[in-house]
Amino acid sequence: MISATVDIKVPFHDVDMMNVVWHGHYAKYLEIARCVLLDKIGYNYNEMKESGYAWPVVDLHIRYPGPAVFGETIQVTATLSEWEDQLKIRYEIRNQHGKRLTRATTTMVAVDMSTQTMCYESPQILLDKIKAAQP
Amino acid sequence: MISATVDIKVPFHDVDMMNVVWHGHYAKYLEIARCVLLDKIGYNYNEMKESGYAWPVVDLHIRYPGPAVFGETIQVTATLSEWEDQLKIRYEIRNQHGKRLTRATTTMVAVDMSTQTMCYESPQILLDKIKAAQP
Amino acid sequence: MISATVDIKVPFHDVDMMNVVWHGHYAKYLEIARCVLLDKIGYNYNEMKESGYAWPVVDLHIRYPGPAVFGETIQVTATLSEWEDQLKIRYEIRNQHGKRLTRATTTMVAVDMSTQTMCYESPQILLDKIKAAQP
Amino acid sequence: MISATVDIKVPFHDVDMMNVVWHGHYAKYLEIARCVLLDKIGYNYNEMKESGYAWPVVDLHIRYPGPAVFGETIQVTATLSEWEDQLKIRYEIRNQHGKRLTRATTTMVAVDMSTQTMCYESPQILLDKIKAAQP
Repeated sequence: MISATVDIKVPFHDVDMMNVVWHGHYAKYLEIARCVLLDKIGYNYNEMKESGYAWPVVDLHIRYPGPAVFGETIQVTATLSEWEDQLKIRYEIRNQHGKRLTRATTTMVAVDMSTQTMCYESPQILLDKIKAAQP
Repeated sequence: MISATVDIKVPFHDVDMMNVVWHGHYAKYLEIARCVLLDKIGYNYNEMKESGYAWPVVDLHIRYPGPAVFGETIQVTATLSEWEDQLKIRYEIRNQHGKRLTRATTTMVAVDMSTQTMCYESPQILLDKIKAAQP
Repeated sequence: MISATVDIKVPFHDVDMMNVVWHGHYAKYLEIARCVLLDKIGYNYNEMKESGYAWPVVDLHIRYPGPAVFGETIQVTATLSEWEDQLKIRYEIRNQHGKRLTRATTTMVAVDMSTQTMCYESPQILLDKIKAAQP
Repeated sequence: MISATVDIKVPFHDVDMMNVVWHGHYAKYLEIARCVLLDKIGYNYNEMKESGYAWPVVDLHIRYPGPAVFGETIQVTATLSEWEDQLKIRYEIRNQHGKRLTRATTTMVAVDMSTQTMCYESPQILLDKIKAAQP
């Protein structure tokens, strides 16, 4: 299982009138962890673009068992889950006491940029990159 | 069915390197439509707070069949879906040609602010507000 | 004087723990008004790109005499101020009672995208567009 | 001189259609460095609130000599500049090669939260905190 973890200190500008992180900002935290994961595979957004494929997020699902507050450090873990047809990544966010605050998944699909068509199977380059990165 | 629709002109600062709206920004569009819906019911965030309840989003699910681009006007519709135990709202985003770009749902639950405990049933005030607003 | 005004309803996600709009979000409000102004001239970001020039903001100055709060409608006015060498726009944000909340200026300069060099004078296309748009 | 420096890896969601960080996002980078500086003094937003004062940003000025791009690590330095009447902080952002990308200043003033009036001099608590933190 290929995974990556980042620590994020919750900034003031992400906290709303109810004194907790506004729910929409978690998509940023997920992306920061996802990009560390994609860097591990050697296939982050820049490499995706160079390979001729865009990989839009087509599905985002976040559950929020608990809130995060200003100034605390949260730990975001992204784990590669599926890649044959789609690139599916699972996430967990925990606070400093190990309490789980958020669970999420994102699903990305390859779009061939030369034809602007969606791919029903992941292009070979992703499979090769993941194979090479596997422990 | 209580529902609300708003037009949003996609701003430059929501568009990413791939020339489409970054997927995380849709949570803002949903909230703008949700607040118009909640205004219709007379139970928007300020009234929620005054009534002694916070209503955090505990689940956000967005599917993205198609992208939105800079400068286009999208139409976001929020429809009340469930309210007995949770406040569930469904969303659709369409472009100017009526093509569906996004489908989403948010689930909010009441938290009693005096005890900081989650309510397993929606408080009476929500039920009353919805009853009064129904056509 | 070429100018444009837009009404913006302050969204929940722009408001911080102190119950006022977080100061950094005003850059978005300015851009929304700026784009309406640029549309009036017929030289918005897409036309800029097509003309071979990028127009990065090289200076942003915002003063905040008063705060804006969730749900209120603010009025943002952008006025063309200088254009010979740089594209300078002035802004005012007022609340519903006409009270001035914010004053700002942005300065943009043309960058020739083919050579990636900054222009010391505005390209002819901007001057022509402004001339044609003047009342 | 009291100062603080943080490294920030530019996230994908901060980069616009022109492949550079959108100018408005720099206000977030400044705040991240500012909060590290305020932590050093022991007078960050939470302590401000507890002391009975809000400290809104009343003036933001950013100059952008050069752009930042996706994935690069930028270094943001915040330096305390004035504090007798206002809390003025200066910022510099440099890229990995030491090239200066941004210069900025923010000015904050104390607002007595019990009376909602602006203070013409900084409250004693700020002066004490700074004195204690000085090297």
